[in-house]
Amino acid sequence: MIHHPAFGIEPWCLRETWLDQGILAQSESLFALSNGHVGWRANLDEGDPHVVPGSYVNGVHELRPYVPSEESYDRPESDQVMVDVTNGKVIRLMVDDEHLDVRTGVLHSHERVLDFRAGVLDRRLVWATPAGTTVRVRSTRLVSLAQRSVAAIAYQVEAVDHAVRVVVQSELVANEAQSGPTGDPRESTMPDAPWQPLWHSSSGSGVQLVHRTARSGLLVGVGMDHVVTGPSSSHVLAESFDDLGRVTVTVPLQPGERLQVIKFVSHAWAAHGSVPALVDETEAALVEARRTGWDGLLAAQRSILDTFWDRSDVVVDGDPEIQQAVRFALFHVLQAAARAEQCSIPAKGLTGPGYDGHTFWDTETFVLPVLTYLQPAAAANALTWRHTTLPLAMARAAQLGLRGAAFPWRTITGAACTGYWPAGTAAFHIGADIADAVIRYCDATGDDAFSESVGLELLVQTARLWYSLGHFGSPDRFRIDGVTGPDEYSAIADNNVYTNLMAQRNLLAAADAAVGHPERAARLDVTGDEVAGWRAAAAAMVVPRDTVLGVHSQSEGFTAHERWDFAATRPDQYPLLLHFPYFDLYRKQVVKQADLVLAMQLRGDAFTAEEKAANFEYYEQLTVRDSSLSACTQAVMAAEVGHRELAYDYLAETARMDLGDVEHNTGNGLHVASLAGTWIALVNGMAGMRERRGTLGFAPRLPSGWTGLAFGIELRGTHFRVEVGATATRYRITAGGPVDLVHFGAPFTLTPGEPVDRPTPADVPTGTGPPAPTQPAGRAPAHRRVADLSRRDTPA
Amino acid sequence: MIHHPAFGIEPWCLRETWLDQGILAQSESLFALSNGHVGWRANLDEGDPHVVPGSYVNGVHELRPYVPSEESYDRPESDQVMVDVTNGKVIRLMVDDEHLDVRTGVLHSHERVLDFRAGVLDRRLVWATPAGTTVRVRSTRLVSLAQRSVAAIAYQVEAVDHAVRVVVQSELVANEAQSGPTGDPRESTMPDAPWQPLWHSSSGSGVQLVHRTARSGLLVGVGMDHVVTGPSSSHVLAESFDDLGRVTVTVPLQPGERLQVIKFVSHAWAAHGSVPALVDETEAALVEARRTGWDGLLAAQRSILDTFWDRSDVVVDGDPEIQQAVRFALFHVLQAAARAEQCSIPAKGLTGPGYDGHTFWDTETFVLPVLTYLQPAAAANALTWRHTTLPLAMARAAQLGLRGAAFPWRTITGAACTGYWPAGTAAFHIGADIADAVIRYCDATGDDAFSESVGLELLVQTARLWYSLGHFGSPDRFRIDGVTGPDEYSAIADNNVYTNLMAQRNLLAAADAAVGHPERAARLDVTGDEVAGWRAAAAAMVVPRDTVLGVHSQSEGFTAHERWDFAATRPDQYPLLLHFPYFDLYRKQVVKQADLVLAMQLRGDAFTAEEKAANFEYYEQLTVRDSSLSACTQAVMAAEVGHRELAYDYLAETARMDLGDVEHNTGNGLHVASLAGTWIALVNGMAGMRERRGTLGFAPRLPSGWTGLAFGIELRGTHFRVEVGATATRYRITAGGPVDLVHFGAPFTLTPGEPVDRPTPADVPTGTGPPAPTQPAGRAPAHRRVADLSRRDTPA
Repeated sequence: MIHHPAFGIEPWCLRETWLDQGILAQSESLFALSNGHVGWRANLDEGDPHVVPGSYVNGVHELRPYVPSEESYDRPESDQVMVDVTNGKVIRLMVDDEHLDVRTGVLHSHERVLDFRAGVLDRRLVWATPAGTTVRVRSTRLVSLAQRSVAAIAYQVEAVDHAVRVVVQSELVANEAQSGPTGDPRESTMPDAPWQPLWHSSSGSGVQLVHRTARSGLLVGVGMDHVVTGPSSSHVLAESFDDLGRVTVTVPLQPGERLQVIKFVSHAWAAHGSVPALVDETEAALVEARRTGWDGLLAAQRSILDTFWDRSDVVVDGDPEIQQAVRFALFHVLQAAARAEQCSIPAKGLTGPGYDGHTFWDTETFVLPVLTYLQPAAAANALTWRHTTLPLAMARAAQLGLRGAAFPWRTITGAACTGYWPAGTAAFHIGADIADAVIRYCDATGDDAFSESVGLELLVQTARLWYSLGHFGSPDRFRIDGVTGPDEYSAIADNNVYTNLMAQRNLLAAADAAVGHPERAARLDVTGDEVAGWRAAAAAMVVPRDTVLGVHSQSEGFTAHERWDFAATRPDQYPLLLHFPYFDLYRKQVVKQADLVLAMQLRGDAFTAEEKAANFEYYEQLTVRDSSLSACTQAVMAAEVGHRELAYDYLAETARMDLGDVEHNTGNGLHVASLAGTWIALVNGMAGMRERRGTLGFAPRLPSGWTGLAFGIELRGTHFRVEVGATATRYRITAGGPVDLVHFGAPFTLTPGEPVDRPTPADVPTGTGPPAPTQPAGRAPAHRRVADLSRRDTPA
Repeated sequence: MIHHPAFGIEPWCLRETWLDQGILAQSESLFALSNGHVGWRANLDEGDPHVVPGSYVNGVHELRPYVPSEESYDRPESDQVMVDVTNGKVIRLMVDDEHLDVRTGVLHSHERVLDFRAGVLDRRLVWATPAGTTVRVRSTRLVSLAQRSVAAIAYQVEAVDHAVRVVVQSELVANEAQSGPTGDPRESTMPDAPWQPLWHSSSGSGVQLVHRTARSGLLVGVGMDHVVTGPSSSHVLAESFDDLGRVTVTVPLQPGERLQVIKFVSHAWAAHGSVPALVDETEAALVEARRTGWDGLLAAQRSILDTFWDRSDVVVDGDPEIQQAVRFALFHVLQAAARAEQCSIPAKGLTGPGYDGHTFWDTETFVLPVLTYLQPAAAANALTWRHTTLPLAMARAAQLGLRGAAFPWRTITGAACTGYWPAGTAAFHIGADIADAVIRYCDATGDDAFSESVGLELLVQTARLWYSLGHFGSPDRFRIDGVTGPDEYSAIADNNVYTNLMAQRNLLAAADAAVGHPERAARLDVTGDEVAGWRAAAAAMVVPRDTVLGVHSQSEGFTAHERWDFAATRPDQYPLLLHFPYFDLYRKQVVKQADLVLAMQLRGDAFTAEEKAANFEYYEQLTVRDSSLSACTQAVMAAEVGHRELAYDYLAETARMDLGDVEHNTGNGLHVASLAGTWIALVNGMAGMRERRGTLGFAPRLPSGWTGLAFGIELRGTHFRVEVGATATRYRITAGGPVDLVHFGAPFTLTPGEPVDRPTPADVPTGTGPPAPTQPAGRAPAHRRVADLSRRDTPA
C-alpha cells in the first residue's frame, strides 16, 4: 500500500508498521507466501480477524454443478473452482485466561515484514491482555522454495512484565467458512465445506488429516509436526478430529522467559490414490522438513533467492517506489511460478480466490515473457503444463466442430470453465497467445528438445485451429469472423486485428517448425499441403483499416460505432462492466484494455511507425483500463511512440496495481500478470526491449529524474545485464558465452569480459515531444512527479 | 396429426379415433381448450396416463431465483415461470373394484373430437374392467368463451352388460408433479410444488381451495360444484384437504342405467387480495355457471363461435387438409386471444408450459395481424396489455441507459425475463414490432380513441428508444449497432435490415401520430425538435446492401461470413441450436428464420421487385427454418416473387406445424404464431393481401388444383369477404359501409350489396415460372402434391 501511512518505501521488503483492519484483506494478499505449489495468504497466526482464509495447493479444486440455461449446447457440465485446503497456518495463543486477539486488550505494537531476499514473512507484536499482562510474540513464516510441499512457522512468545500461563494451540483446520459472494463476477464462488473427512491421526507432536472433495474426488492430506523449545515444564498434547488437528503446548513463563514452537506443515494431493499413500507422502515430507530443520529451511530459502536476485534484480535509480514495486513484483512472480511444475500459474497465483483460481491468457502473454528471460525453466514448465492439457483442448476443438486444439479461456485442469461464451469460448486468441509464448521461449533459449516436442505440437495444433476457424472470403482474404479479442468490451466481432496478426504469427511459426522437424511433424500427420495452407492463410490474413480515419480498426466495423459517452460517465461507474450492460459496451467504441495497442507491441513488425503513432493516439481516447492487463502495454507503446511522460505514468500505475489496490480487488488476490507487467513496462517500455527471431534489441531511455535502470536477462544460456545510465548504456555478460544484441537498430556482439557501452539518448524534455494523446474523461493515469517522492523515502 | 392413422381429415373438427399413447403429449396440446384466460390441456379425465398436466390461468406465475453469472449487470433478479394452477379437470371412475385406466382392462373404443363450431372436446370410450365388466363413458368438456373463469365437464357413465357399483371422484388437485427437464431450452422449467395451501372448504357438492405462490405471492382460488343426475340411490360426499378437493358420487347402475355428473369449475386469482375476497369471487362465478347450466353454457359457446365463423371462416376448395388445418388454426388463435383481456397472449397460448408461458414478439408480428382483421377487439386488448407494461419497459430502458421504452424480449407480466441477453435484451426489434401492430390496428380499425391514447404513447416511447439506441455516424447515416434481428442464428450485429426498416416505420409513425395529436403529444413532452429528429433518423436510416452480390446484407458484414457447411450437417443435427454452439452459428451465413425475408414482407415498400427476387433466392439458400416462425413468411414472399409451388409447400408446412408436430415439441404446447401463420400464408400469401395506410390490396392466385379460396376481413367496421375463384375473384360486403380496396394494383370501392368481380390470373403452370431457389441440403419443405390427397379425404 504505497500511500498507506502504515507502509514505508524500502528497497528490499514490504513493511507494515501497524495493523489497520480496514485493509486486512489487501494485506492478506500482499504478504502472501507461495512457492507455486503451496500458497498461504497472510492471515494472522491466530486465525481471527480475517477476511479471506487462504491455504491453497495448486490444482486442487471442486466442481460446481451445471445450471441449465438458454446458452445451451456448449456450456461445460461443471465449472472448476479452486478450494481452500486444510489450513495449517493457525497458531492460537492463550495468555492466562485470554486468547490473543488484536481486537481486544491493548496492541502495543504490530509489525509485518515481507523480506524479498529471505523469502519469509516476519511478524512481531507486543500485546497486553485486558487484565494487563503483556507478551511479546514473534512469528516467522515461510513456504519453502526448496521443499515443495512444506511450509513452516517459527512461533515465539515471551512473557514481558508478569509471570503468565501460556497455552499455544497449533492447528490444522479443514472446511473453514468462506465469506459470502458480493455479486462481483471477478470474485470467487468457492463452495462452503467442500471437504469430506476420510482419516485423521495424532501422535507425539504431530497430526495428519486426509479429506476428499465430494464432486471432483480429489484427496488432500495435510500433516504437521512441531519442535518445542522452552521451559522444561512444557507439556505437549496432540489431538485429531474429522476437520481439526490440534497440538497444544502449555507452559508457565516467567518474565523474560520464552517459548518457541517450530511448526512444520506438509501437503499432498492426488486425483487417484489411497489414504495410506497420501499419509505416507505427507509424513515423508514432514520427516524431511524436521531433519532439515528451521534454520536449514531458512538457509535454503535465502540461497535460492540469492541466485534469483543475482541474475534478475532490477535496479531503479531515481524512483524508490518503483524500485520497491518491481522487486515486490518479481518476488511474487517467482513465488507464483517457482514450483508450479505441471500445474498452471493462475491469474492470482496462490494469493487469493479471485477468478476461482483459474488460469487465463495472462500467463502466456504477460507472465511468461518475464519468466522466459529470468527463469526459463519455469516458463518451460508452464508451457509443458499447457501441453499436458492438449488432449482436452483437442477434444474441445472437435466438440466445437474445429480442428487442432481449442484451449480453454479459463481453467484449472485444462477443461473449459465458463458459462459466458462471448468472453470465453469466443476468445480464441488464447491459442495464438500460447503459440507466441512458445515461439518466444524457443527463440530465447534454443531449447531444441522442447522445440521439437512440446513446442512443435503446440504450434501445429493451434495453427490447425486457426486454419479451420478462419475462411478464405476470396483467395487473398483469410477472415476470422465472430471472435473476441483481448478487449472484453467488444465481442463476437469479425477480423480482430490482434487475433488475426497473432494467428498469422502462429500459422507461420507452425509452418516453419513443421519444416524444421519433418519427422516429428509427419508423426502429427502434417502434410506439405497443410503447411502450404497455413502459409497461404497467413499471407492472406485480413487486417482491417479505416482509411478515412487513417487508423486500424480494432475489428471490422469498430470505428463506425458510436463513441461511448465518456463525459456522461461518472467516476463511480467504473469499472463499466459492473454498471452497464454488455450489450451497450459491445456496440460502442470503448476499450477495456489494450487490444490493438497490444497487437502493436507484440506484432510491431506489422505496423509502420506512423501507423503506431496514429493508432496509439486514437485508441488512447477510448481505453478506460478497466482491466489490470492494460497499463503495462500502454506504457510500452507510449514509450515507443515518444510519449515518455505518459509511459512513466502507466509504468507507475502498473507498479501500483496491487500495492495501491488500484482495482479495489487486491483483497481477492494479487494480479500476477500485472506484477509481471511492472517488469515489462520497465524492460520493454523504458528500455525498449523487443524480440526478433534469435536476437534481442533495446532502445533504452531514462525517464527524466532517473539516473539509472539496470536489469538482467538470460538468453540462450547466457546471463547478461543491461545498465542504462543517463548518457550511456552498458551491456555486460555475467555468465555464459557471446550473444548478438541490437541497440537502437544497430546490431553488435556481446562477449564475456568485454562490456559494451552505447549512448543513451536523452529523454525528450517535458513539453517538447509529440502532443500527448488524451484519455477518456477521468481515466488518464495519475501523473507521476518524481520530485514529490523524495520526501517519502524510507527513513531507515 | 395429419398423417397419423388415428386422425382423419374433416372440415370442422379434429377427430382421434383411437388412443395412441405414443402421441399422448401432442394430443394433450392439440385438443386443449382455452378462452385466453383459463386453459386446460386435454389430459384424460382420470388424470393418468398423462405427460404434461396442464391447468393454466393467464398471468399466474412463480419466480425463479437469480443465479449469478458472469453476464453480470443487467440480468434480471428473477425469471417468471408460468405454473400449473389447481387442476379442476380430474374425474376418476371406479367400476366395481377397478379404477378406469386405459392401460388396464380392455379399451374397446376411444374417440376424441375437438369440435370447432361447438367449442367442446368430446370423448367417448367403452372400457371393460380386467374382470370383464363393461362401461360406456362420455365426457364433454368446455372452457367457456362466455363466462371467463368457468370451465365445465359433462361426465356420463353407463353400465353396459352387468350391474356395477360406480364411484365417480371429481377432484381439484393442487401441486401436481411436473415432468423433469430434458435440457431443451425451449421447454418449461416450472418449479415443483409452487403452491402453499391457504384455505380449503367443502359443503354439499362443492369444494374450494385457495393457494399462494411462495415467491411471486399470487393468490389463486379454484372452486367446483356439481349437478348429479342418475338413479335416486346416488350418494354425494364432498371433502377438502390442503392440496385436494374431492366430491365422491357413489351409485349402483343396472345395465343401461346412466349416471351423469356435470362439473362446474371456476378460477380466480389476485396479486394482492384476501382469501375471503377470492373465495367469494370463485363462488360467484360458480353460482352463475350453475344458474346458466350445462345447456346454457353449450349454447353460449356455440353462439359465440357461430358469429366468429360467420365472419372469419376460411374456405379452401381443393385441399381438405389445408381446409381442416386453417379452421383448427383459427379456432386455437381465437381460444388463445378471446378473453386474454389485460393479459398477454403467450407463445403457446394456454396449451402447454413451453417457453415458460412467456410472450414474445410472436404476438405482435404473427398473431395480431390476424386478430386485427378478424377480432379487432382482441388485438386492441393485446396492445392495451402492452401499454399497461409501459412503466416497466420505460424503467428497463432507463436501466439500459436509453430513453423511451425497452419492451422485454420475453415476459409474463411485462418485466424482462431472460438470462441470455444476446438473444434477449439485444433483440430490440420487439419495440418496432409492437409499433407495427399499433400502426396496423389503427389503420385497419380507425379506432381514434385507441390511436390517441394507447397507440400514440406506444409509438412515441418506442420511437424514443430507437432514437437513443441508434446514432448518426454521419448526418446521412443513422446506424443501429450491436442488436439482434429475428434470425437467432446471428446476434449483436450492426444495422440489421429488418430492425432498421421497422425502426424507420416506427419513427415516422410516431412523428405522424405526434403531429396528428398535438395536445396528447405535448403531454408526453414531445417537442418539434424531437419529431424532427425522428424524421431525420428515419430518412438517414442505414440499409446495408452487398453491391457485389447484388443482395441486401441481413446485417452489416453478414454476406462476407463463411457459409454454413450444410452438406456436412446431418438431418439429426437440426435444430442446429441443440447441436452446435452459438459462437459457430453467429459467425457464419446460416439463417434460423426469415429475417430479411420478413422485412420484405412487412416493409415491401422498401424493396424493388428485382431486389425482392434476388434477396429471396439468396436467403432461401441459407434458411434452415429451425423456428416455427419462418415458413409462413417464406410462403408469403415465395408467392410474391412468383415461386408459387414453393409458396404452397411452405403454406403446407405452416399448416402442419402442430398437426404434424414438425418441430417435435407440440407436446409442450401449440405454436400460436405458427397457427396464425396458416392464415397469413393463405391471405397474405395466396391472396397477396398487403396493407397500405388506410386501405388493403390483394393479388390473389389459386394454387394449381384449387378451385376456390374464401375468407372474411373486417376493415374499419365493415365486414367483407374475398372469394377467390379459378378465373375471377369476388369481393362482397357482408356488413357495414363501403371500403376502398385494391386488386392487383388497381383501386376500387366496394359498396354494400354490390359485389365486385375481378379476374384471377391463372397460377403459373408448373415448370414455367422462374427457376425455383434451392434450400440448404435436406431443408427444402416437403413438396405438396394435391393429387395425392384426394384418397385421404374424409369418408364422412
